[in-house]
Amino acid sequence: MRTRLDCVPCLVRQAVDAARMASDDPVVHEAVLRRVLRELSVFDLSASAPAMARRIHRTVRELSGEPDPYRAVKERTNELALELLPEVRERIAVASDPLEMAVRMAIAGNIIDFGLGQPVADTTLVETVERVAGAPLDGDMEAFAREAEAAGSILFLADNAGEIVLDRLLIERLGPQRVTVAVKGAPILNDALRADAEAAGLDALVEVVDTGSDAPGTILETCSGSFRERFAAADLVIAKGQGNYETLSDAPRPIWFVLMAKCAVIADHMGCEPGSLVLLRRPADGAPVSAGES
Amino acid sequence: MRTRLDCVPCLVRQAVDAARMASDDPVVHEAVLRRVLRELSVFDLSASAPAMARRIHRTVRELSGEPDPYRAVKERTNELALELLPEVRERIAVASDPLEMAVRMAIAGNIIDFGLGQPVADTTLVETVERVAGAPLDGDMEAFAREAEAAGSILFLADNAGEIVLDRLLIERLGPQRVTVAVKGAPILNDALRADAEAAGLDALVEVVDTGSDAPGTILETCSGSFRERFAAADLVIAKGQGNYETLSDAPRPIWFVLMAKCAVIADHMGCEPGSLVLLRRPADGAPVSAGES
Repeated sequence: MRTRLDCVPCLVRQAVDAARMASDDPVVHEAVLRRVLRELSVFDLSASAPAMARRIHRTVRELSGEPDPYRAVKERTNELALELLPEVRERIAVASDPLEMAVRMAIAGNIIDFGLGQPVADTTLVETVERVAGAPLDGDMEAFAREAEAAGSILFLADNAGEIVLDRLLIERLGPQRVTVAVKGAPILNDALRADAEAAGLDALVEVVDTGSDAPGTILETCSGSFRERFAAADLVIAKGQGNYETLSDAPRPIWFVLMAKCAVIADHMGCEPGSLVLLRRPADGAPVSAGES
Repeated sequence: MRTRLDCVPCLVRQAVDAARMASDDPVVHEAVLRRVLRELSVFDLSASAPAMARRIHRTVRELSGEPDPYRAVKERTNELALELLPEVRERIAVASDPLEMAVRMAIAGNIIDFGLGQPVADTTLVETVERVAGAPLDGDMEAFAREAEAAGSILFLADNAGEIVLDRLLIERLGPQRVTVAVKGAPILNDALRADAEAAGLDALVEVVDTGSDAPGTILETCSGSFRERFAAADLVIAKGQGNYETLSDAPRPIWFVLMAKCAVIADHMGCEPGSLVLLRRPADGAPVSAGES
């Protein structure tokens, strides 16, 4: 989906937050902001917001000299999610529909987004899990279960650190032998890297690949050839989080998106209310692949 | 006070909102946004945020061809406030401290800010008045009353349309014969102009002057010489709203600021919590005028 004008103030906000996360130096913060404003003033709005976010975070890393500003945040959120794992696994095991509960818990992981680095108390995680277990799920769970059952190969596009730990439980339910997990190819925001997949124990369970890209989403043109081949060949693709939706909503193949609609622009594009728990197939089941809707 | 980095995303948001208020043409919206981003990228952050807002709204007016985009909004808010006037006047009349209640009601007017043009139901006005009548007032009411009593001349710097209608009741309490009301010299956001002072009936009550400027606040260098003389000569200056605080917090004379602290940056600068009702003297009573704190 293209960048809407409403995304621009949000991207500027993200630049300020990321600069502060990467450096304590106000001179760096201001330099980042000025360069981002200049780049945004000529940005091609037909590209997705994550395409601009990729440039923003490159600027942050370059001007701060910090190659992975969110590393400590990612490690901490992995730890918090790992502490929660036994309880969530049990919750899934006893659910009347374990696959559906595993989808919900993967969305709970998506809500627990520490992208802006605020420390989050353990109670918040527990509360989020509790809330998501009972909230309405906006999507066709039956169709998802049917397609997942029939798929010989599943490509799972991970989103953030921490979140990837809870994704593990959905991957276990899907049957790990069929699943390949894709993480990002280089540090970008708090997105999961190979180290985070390892912290989640996924490397012992499934094949872990990376996109070859530092985009906070999946911008196919920036991904490696080997990733693109897997993306095209997989029987089923599951994509977590808003960044993947923003970059793949018009992709040339069906994808199941699993996320919480956190922002009004994306919720509007998906046709749901902000805050909804979403399990959305694009294109809709049976519909032809869009040629360029954005 | 200088523009903080946190103000920048907010200014970008304001540019998008103002462009949409002024025009239905997406081409205009995008052109406004791009020019504002370019200007912000080289903006002198030691200037106040309203200095940048002034440029933003000039850009909006120029590119939209609409000389006063908020005119209809201003007229509507004046009408809404006028409908409320008898009730608020009665509330002040029966209060144990009528001057204090008049200050509160002037702050209620400041809360009812339709800067972004959302239609507001009449009930919201009534609710705001009710809430402000009972909420804590952060300020030295006694000192204010004492200085107001002693002043031979009072310059009252108005803020928004609608708000200026409720200001009238504070001006009545202060004794209109001593008061001069200053509105903006040209359209800027929903700030009150001479027409709004007339809608509020102030022209029959006090002398109405204008700043000679289209800044959303009082940037003295942009004001007329005659306004600056009045500003320097008045025994007491009362300034409404955040824009006046942002532009006059370091002014070379004492000022009483009357407002709700709507944003975290300004609340932090004033030393209060966001959402506080503020009656603040700068410099503090007895303190020397600051030479350049920002």
